[in-house]
Amino acid sequence: MARVLAFAVSAAALVAPPTQQTRRPVTARAVVSEPIPSSVSSKDTLVAAAEAFDLQGYFAKKVQAVEKALDASIQCTTPETKKIVESMRYSLLAGGKRVRPVMTIAACEMFGGSEATAMPTAVAIEMIHTMSLIHDDLPAMDDDDLRRGSPTNHVVFGDDVAILAGDALLSTSFEHCADGSTKAGVEPKVIVECIRRLGEAVGAVGLAGGQVMDLECEAKQGVTLDELTWIHTHKTAKLLEVSVATGALLGGANPRDVKQCETFANDIGIAFQVADDILDVTATSEALGKTAGKDLDADKTTYPKLMGLDGARAEAERLYQEAIDSVVPYGEAAIPLIAIAKYIVERKS
Amino acid sequence: MARVLAFAVSAAALVAPPTQQTRRPVTARAVVSEPIPSSVSSKDTLVAAAEAFDLQGYFAKKVQAVEKALDASIQCTTPETKKIVESMRYSLLAGGKRVRPVMTIAACEMFGGSEATAMPTAVAIEMIHTMSLIHDDLPAMDDDDLRRGSPTNHVVFGDDVAILAGDALLSTSFEHCADGSTKAGVEPKVIVECIRRLGEAVGAVGLAGGQVMDLECEAKQGVTLDELTWIHTHKTAKLLEVSVATGALLGGANPRDVKQCETFANDIGIAFQVADDILDVTATSEALGKTAGKDLDADKTTYPKLMGLDGARAEAERLYQEAIDSVVPYGEAAIPLIAIAKYIVERKS
Repeated sequence: MARVLAFAVSAAALVAPPTQQTRRPVTARAVVSEPIPSSVSSKDTLVAAAEAFDLQGYFAKKVQAVEKALDASIQCTTPETKKIVESMRYSLLAGGKRVRPVMTIAACEMFGGSEATAMPTAVAIEMIHTMSLIHDDLPAMDDDDLRRGSPTNHVVFGDDVAILAGDALLSTSFEHCADGSTKAGVEPKVIVECIRRLGEAVGAVGLAGGQVMDLECEAKQGVTLDELTWIHTHKTAKLLEVSVATGALLGGANPRDVKQCETFANDIGIAFQVADDILDVTATSEALGKTAGKDLDADKTTYPKLMGLDGARAEAERLYQEAIDSVVPYGEAAIPLIAIAKYIVERKS
Repeated sequence: MARVLAFAVSAAALVAPPTQQTRRPVTARAVVSEPIPSSVSSKDTLVAAAEAFDLQGYFAKKVQAVEKALDASIQCTTPETKKIVESMRYSLLAGGKRVRPVMTIAACEMFGGSEATAMPTAVAIEMIHTMSLIHDDLPAMDDDDLRRGSPTNHVVFGDDVAILAGDALLSTSFEHCADGSTKAGVEPKVIVECIRRLGEAVGAVGLAGGQVMDLECEAKQGVTLDELTWIHTHKTAKLLEVSVATGALLGGANPRDVKQCETFANDIGIAFQVADDILDVTATSEALGKTAGKDLDADKTTYPKLMGLDGARAEAERLYQEAIDSVVPYGEAAIPLIAIAKYIVERKS
């Protein structure tokens, strides 16, 4: 943070990227819903602009486009696929905040790319996220019967179909990223790099690896802070990280900028988890919409347990500040991402 | 078949591809293990050469390279991933015939491409195949405790880890295809097309769709021949098809040649299933290494049940002949694929 606050830059310098050689100019398109003060001159001013930003309006517009693309992405083309397509669509189109695809689009636009360029990858990431929810809910995993108030996939379609629908969503995500991005005119080399990152984000050093480590730690005493952070980095933050990183790549970001975006998303992902742990201790069940204190009851290792409540609060704040610092160099174009970050970390439920 | 037998071509015409504009010359590298008669002049002569071909030696050599690449493809790079990597490797390196990756390499070499070019995709396909076996064996699916004489993945690691290891293998397959093929110097556009095809081959109009349709047909009476063929086309043939098609693409084949290869592999895939159904009726349990007559006992719809034993035999022969016809135009370079096709269709167990 000191690094960023130390240089008092003009609005022009803020809008100009830190590394200019390969970046496209940030266009007006990057900020769509809210008039931004013309002189943004520091991190504090940027954060204030993000607070004034109409995030709800921004999300409403982006989510509408994402929902349309999700709906079009999986269609029944032959009667034999009726059941599996129904099962895939049941979970893919069951609502949800669509935070990941919106972040992909926001990151792409931050570097001057278009929504259409980012959309196939954004949709692919939501397919991956949906697969992970379907498989997580299985009796062999968390055994959840309800998600977002509706019966889970396996309750409606059976465990076998749910497993296969998850597999189909995962593989279709890569097909969709490859095919859709090609049709959107994305350079093949960029598509290959996006797919490489998506694949990694679900594998042993991604989502699945994080979940297996989580299962292992559930069964043992004395989980360390490093282990807890490893779990959340892979189970939660990795998919957010790849959402923002692929968006940046698709927007034309160079490797250094992509790295900045990864730091931003990883910090937000962990901060989200720390905030979640804090809420479990402090919020009432009513405000949370689920049973509060569940983690304590289950004797689960959490950030408040390992760092104390104040320590956890300080850690969430540190991560949030580091995240914002990572995108401050992109100036006004970063306002949607900063506003999303604030929303994720400061949510009350 | 008439089409192919009708034109009496010289050896030169056979070796020359049917569409020459975009194909690389077929090199000596394409046939590695066996001296081939210098004058191959008809389908019959090619089939005779395939019969004389040292398929065992060819497979031994190719499988050795595939096993080495599989072993290198998934390694534990951090202690936190020990368990999931162990689970992924347990099934990936559990032996098996490696028919699919060898076919990818054979198809690539048929068009003058190298083993190294095809290997990352070949490995990716074996990862996908392994994922499908792990998930198939789950209690929620076929509930099998043994595979190739060893305890299945979920018996060793638990259902939850087995589900996640399958997911990780599936996503890693795409990562590996993207990353490995890039390192092998494959054109990004070709990598994207391979990934698009791999993704499709596992989704609703692929492996998973075929399995869901199979589950649906198990529960009903009066499965038609069209439905049975749809199931096997997607459940079995599709992954063989993508193995050969991606191999061809990586070898530099043009769209028309890729189409020929798809016909070849799809026919072989269905012929394999018809042969399997016939064996279940005719073979002794001893020769089969598993309980014969299982399908009849389970009142499962099979080709002999729908077409009679003679009808099923005629269908297997028809498919086999059509498959061979599809690759005869590639002459001597097609001998390994023809030999593999013979092996798959004529196996006794």
